[in-house]
Amino acid sequence: MGMTISEKILAAKVGREKVVPGELYEVPIDWVLCHEVTTPAALRMLEARGMNRVFDPSRIVAIPDHTVPAMDIKAAKLYQKLKSWVQEFGIQHWFEVGRAGIAHVVLEGTGLIKPGETLVSGDSHTCNAGALGMFATGVGSTDLAGAIYSGKVWFKVPETMLIRVTGELQEGVTPKDLVLEVIKRIGADGANYLVMEWVGDTIDRMDMEGRFTLTNMAIEAGGKTGIIAVDDTTRNFLAARGVSPDQYTEHRSDPDAEYQVVVDIDASEVEPTVAYPHIPSNGRVAGSDKIRVDQAYVGSCTNGRISDLRDVARILRGRKVADHVRMIVVPATQAVWKQAVVEGLMEVFVDAGATVSYPSCGACLGMHSGVLGPNDVCISSTNRNFVGRMGDPSAQIYLASPATVAASAVRGYITDPREFNESHQAVAVSAD
Amino acid sequence: MGMTISEKILAAKVGREKVVPGELYEVPIDWVLCHEVTTPAALRMLEARGMNRVFDPSRIVAIPDHTVPAMDIKAAKLYQKLKSWVQEFGIQHWFEVGRAGIAHVVLEGTGLIKPGETLVSGDSHTCNAGALGMFATGVGSTDLAGAIYSGKVWFKVPETMLIRVTGELQEGVTPKDLVLEVIKRIGADGANYLVMEWVGDTIDRMDMEGRFTLTNMAIEAGGKTGIIAVDDTTRNFLAARGVSPDQYTEHRSDPDAEYQVVVDIDASEVEPTVAYPHIPSNGRVAGSDKIRVDQAYVGSCTNGRISDLRDVARILRGRKVADHVRMIVVPATQAVWKQAVVEGLMEVFVDAGATVSYPSCGACLGMHSGVLGPNDVCISSTNRNFVGRMGDPSAQIYLASPATVAASAVRGYITDPREFNESHQAVAVSAD
Repeated sequence: MGMTISEKILAAKVGREKVVPGELYEVPIDWVLCHEVTTPAALRMLEARGMNRVFDPSRIVAIPDHTVPAMDIKAAKLYQKLKSWVQEFGIQHWFEVGRAGIAHVVLEGTGLIKPGETLVSGDSHTCNAGALGMFATGVGSTDLAGAIYSGKVWFKVPETMLIRVTGELQEGVTPKDLVLEVIKRIGADGANYLVMEWVGDTIDRMDMEGRFTLTNMAIEAGGKTGIIAVDDTTRNFLAARGVSPDQYTEHRSDPDAEYQVVVDIDASEVEPTVAYPHIPSNGRVAGSDKIRVDQAYVGSCTNGRISDLRDVARILRGRKVADHVRMIVVPATQAVWKQAVVEGLMEVFVDAGATVSYPSCGACLGMHSGVLGPNDVCISSTNRNFVGRMGDPSAQIYLASPATVAASAVRGYITDPREFNESHQAVAVSAD
Repeated sequence: MGMTISEKILAAKVGREKVVPGELYEVPIDWVLCHEVTTPAALRMLEARGMNRVFDPSRIVAIPDHTVPAMDIKAAKLYQKLKSWVQEFGIQHWFEVGRAGIAHVVLEGTGLIKPGETLVSGDSHTCNAGALGMFATGVGSTDLAGAIYSGKVWFKVPETMLIRVTGELQEGVTPKDLVLEVIKRIGADGANYLVMEWVGDTIDRMDMEGRFTLTNMAIEAGGKTGIIAVDDTTRNFLAARGVSPDQYTEHRSDPDAEYQVVVDIDASEVEPTVAYPHIPSNGRVAGSDKIRVDQAYVGSCTNGRISDLRDVARILRGRKVADHVRMIVVPATQAVWKQAVVEGLMEVFVDAGATVSYPSCGACLGMHSGVLGPNDVCISSTNRNFVGRMGDPSAQIYLASPATVAASAVRGYITDPREFNESHQAVAVSAD
């Protein structure tokens, strides 16, 4: 019996020819990603035990992103704690406020993390990096403390779910819709402690930004991580960041690898999908119900990349956000932010009546810059719509693609973005 | 004995030929500006008394600006309260999130408020609008409630301080330095309950943005308001906003008007001035001491206009913010934000390593987006450096011009911006 990519990565890291799901290993970690919200708790654990060391200052990446520029005094202290630790231990990869953005999206583009490597962070969307063919997963503060100290984390080798996607996504349908459709089918616990491995010609044709959206959402189905094998798209992405193939190891699942379950998806049947409150698996076709929205939010590690902003700008160009809607656009990183300036997207957003935030996790987790009030209804390109996730517990969060968020912002109620397809517009005009 | 501009405005409003400082009048108010932090308290006062009305829905301007996009659930509720009141009473001038910015700066550019009019708001920097030759002042929530209900506020006619400024400001010296110098001379209570009337050839040559900075800071010297007589600069500013001279009344102080005090300033002697902690009157020449800064903040109703951002970009272009400094740039309004995009300033900011926020009061008053932590040192283009104003009480706030903030961000310590003057640079180069 062969092995999956994830099993091969873990086997290589623990120095064995083969690992089997269910086995426990203390796995060497190539990279530890630290942000300001969960890292200070891990550091305090270590300090309380006199364990004042880091396993390797060149293997730790520290990026404050949730609450900076500091949203309050408590946040300022968390940032200070992270920064003083970085200075004390000579952490090599520090990203100051104004030179970073959302940690996962910054990290994916640094050229630091590479295929075949392991990555942990005290953040559930660490699975994002799996699109680079690496084993990346979120851990709690205790495991994070252990990783910082020893460079190792105990893992039970997970089984893998294979998601085979074939065919063309329709115009106006995006990777976010695909992953929301998958989570709808398998359930929010459908991939509990499984690796979600994506394959198929749809994935083969998908750009890296779309792939990150897929692996990023693994945790929303309970997955340990998501992963996609390296191909030319991956190689080109890395090459653009100065990383050549001799610097990393490509793993590929064996033809006879064992999967716990296989999910087949015909991409052409995927529709613009909206996850209704209060769970990401509660998907329905966008526009099935006329739901008035108060806020339209584009951003997060899931969907705050330049392709997402282009999708939004395509719909907003020459149009206005509905009078009653407040629209907030949050580019994921400073690089994305600048690119949106250069491409002229920012003028589109402002002319439409949207406001653009600094790169940050922002309101995705109800921290700041768009927190929801009582009974607010929000259409959001983020990843989670649990009760209270974005603010008041009575608020309603609908998860969708950036295109659906933009279409809904313009109409003022949740809208199928295909209404804004060029082909659809042409039909609409010719029918006049 | 003649009258000052302010006395003439108040006399006209109460229908008398003459008013004398010290007299009390119930003054009709042309405009009431409402933001989401102080207005809800006023509304609750009215509601508790069954006084559910507004004096004139066409004369109220409602602009949420301090805590939006909502920084937390409480802020979301304040915003909701303001918006639901706007809807219930048909308030005509409502500026949704994403279509506004800092209320004072939005309002000055709307073409709504005009010379000769009266304006109140539950915000101390309402004096900003005095640069348009009107009587504009901040009031407490009780007076705000009265104004909303009746369109009138009781005022004691203030005496006036005349500030005569003559000569040319040096290259690299700005209106912010001028007003910090004046406050340094007269003290933070030097203009208590006085109108600060600015005259002189320096003011005559100053653009409207600089004039707003001057009148905006009146409250920092204890002034009731600041005011500047209408001239062609004012008329052109208004004409660009569709307001012609027949729509407003120009008042001018009589040659024999009585002033409580006259302050004479030679503009050419004003140096880049930094107000040291913890009071705006604690001015010293920028760079007198080598003070390392953690944060550099550009924004606020005082200095978040396009000319301010141009000053910053001139210094940041081709340079980097010092490694240890986080720099935050907060354009005052969506219009300023877009203009900065169009002029290419945004790329300069991002390339330098600064982050750009959505228009908001932000960290000026320690609300969000740059709140200071313990012992943080901040150089800021804002208006107040009281203990705890921008966050932790142990933080140190140094007030300065946007140019001084930018120069300090680049050097990493408080720096005289004249080091970045073209003439200075040329000297430096030729001396090599």
